[in-house]
Amino acid sequence: MQEHYRIGLGEDIHRLGAPRPLWLAGMEVSPSGGAIAHSDGDVVLHALIDALLGALALGDIGDHFPPSDPAYRDMASTLFLEKVLPMIHQRGYRINNCDITIRLERPKLYPFKQALREHLAKLLHVDIEQISLKAKTSEGLDAVGEGEAVFCQVAVLLARQSVPLSL
Amino acid sequence: MQEHYRIGLGEDIHRLGAPRPLWLAGMEVSPSGGAIAHSDGDVVLHALIDALLGALALGDIGDHFPPSDPAYRDMASTLFLEKVLPMIHQRGYRINNCDITIRLERPKLYPFKQALREHLAKLLHVDIEQISLKAKTSEGLDAVGEGEAVFCQVAVLLARQSVPLSL
Amino acid sequence: MQEHYRIGLGEDIHRLGAPRPLWLAGMEVSPSGGAIAHSDGDVVLHALIDALLGALALGDIGDHFPPSDPAYRDMASTLFLEKVLPMIHQRGYRINNCDITIRLERPKLYPFKQALREHLAKLLHVDIEQISLKAKTSEGLDAVGEGEAVFCQVAVLLARQSVPLSL
Repeated sequence: MQEHYRIGLGEDIHRLGAPRPLWLAGMEVSPSGGAIAHSDGDVVLHALIDALLGALALGDIGDHFPPSDPAYRDMASTLFLEKVLPMIHQRGYRINNCDITIRLERPKLYPFKQALREHLAKLLHVDIEQISLKAKTSEGLDAVGEGEAVFCQVAVLLARQSVPLSL
Repeated sequence: MQEHYRIGLGEDIHRLGAPRPLWLAGMEVSPSGGAIAHSDGDVVLHALIDALLGALALGDIGDHFPPSDPAYRDMASTLFLEKVLPMIHQRGYRINNCDITIRLERPKLYPFKQALREHLAKLLHVDIEQISLKAKTSEGLDAVGEGEAVFCQVAVLLARQSVPLSL
Repeated sequence: MQEHYRIGLGEDIHRLGAPRPLWLAGMEVSPSGGAIAHSDGDVVLHALIDALLGALALGDIGDHFPPSDPAYRDMASTLFLEKVLPMIHQRGYRINNCDITIRLERPKLYPFKQALREHLAKLLHVDIEQISLKAKTSEGLDAVGEGEAVFCQVAVLLARQSVPLSL
């Protein structure tokens, strides 16, 4: 059995300050100061979905779930992920591993990191050892550093098993 | 046949506002408001070239095409790509897939996305399914969000076929 | 022998202006104007360590070397790397290749690039052809462009050899 790989890289940024919860990786990490966005503004799931779609050149999150479509207003991004995962699996790919970096000044995400990883592993139907989640601040620099925004970037490696042809 | 892989990551940013066309991925996407740069300022091709060179540790675009060299003044970046691709192929590698993200406020790139992908696939001599191109805004944040600049980041996976040694 | 891969992506940013040397990739590139940080503020080694840890989902640099721990005050980041590399090797992985991008306005890193690569290859016990290091400016844009900060991003591919099972 050989493995064939594809690389994907996704990112997302949203302004903070909406009067609703802050959602990250499908979990509520703060009851207020949420992301200003059409859907729930979950930058982790949005960046992850864009990485998955990008790895197989299937477009981006806006192609599949247009912000202009009222059906997606305030929708939980976990529902987007539930629609995207089968697209990957149907093409014979699975998530090999992904490496996630969140940049946010406040709240500090350290106490949430392990729970976010566990939740993502469950959402993605993979082992927790395949999910890396890192949380950083921007050292007070630029929009994220000034507390105006939250940013996430996700690198993913997809793998497909293939039986070698006999020579 | 086994595959050996290499990862590359390239990025580029340019200020906007030059009195010339805006070039992205080798295509003119706007007749004015172009990038301020020594060459044509095509951030997509520059980031892609840096990803290709980086994957094989062959230096960066500035090493091969120094901005200080008048020969490269206003040169089309497609010519840079034509010189870089053979360096990859001569080492036995091909492009497995690449995932491109452009950040730009205006013009909206949605109507251009498919044409840009098709053009890149042709330039790179690969199938369109190996090229992912995503276009985002920066939600009004920082230099890109304020419309001052265009940014591009490219992740690439190169692959080399190798016949396994008999055990 | 087959190869199994893992992808990692790390980044770091620090403010400049501390009255101490500027350290990058374990080398002093300027005697003054260093990074403001708890340790030596070497964004290249920090981003590299986060990429290595992320590839195997082993947490991040802050988990292993908490800034709140006085033991790590002003510590050389090369010592962090010396502790992280065995974690990779013990799990059967080696560095396949890594692609590093530094964004800094001044000093110009062009004269240092080859020495930084050579130093990193030695620190990582790999061939120099496995290390790509690119240096860019931010074209005067945002905090890095204004000379306030230095940023580094590292993509890494780890590989593990495995003997195929007989069918």
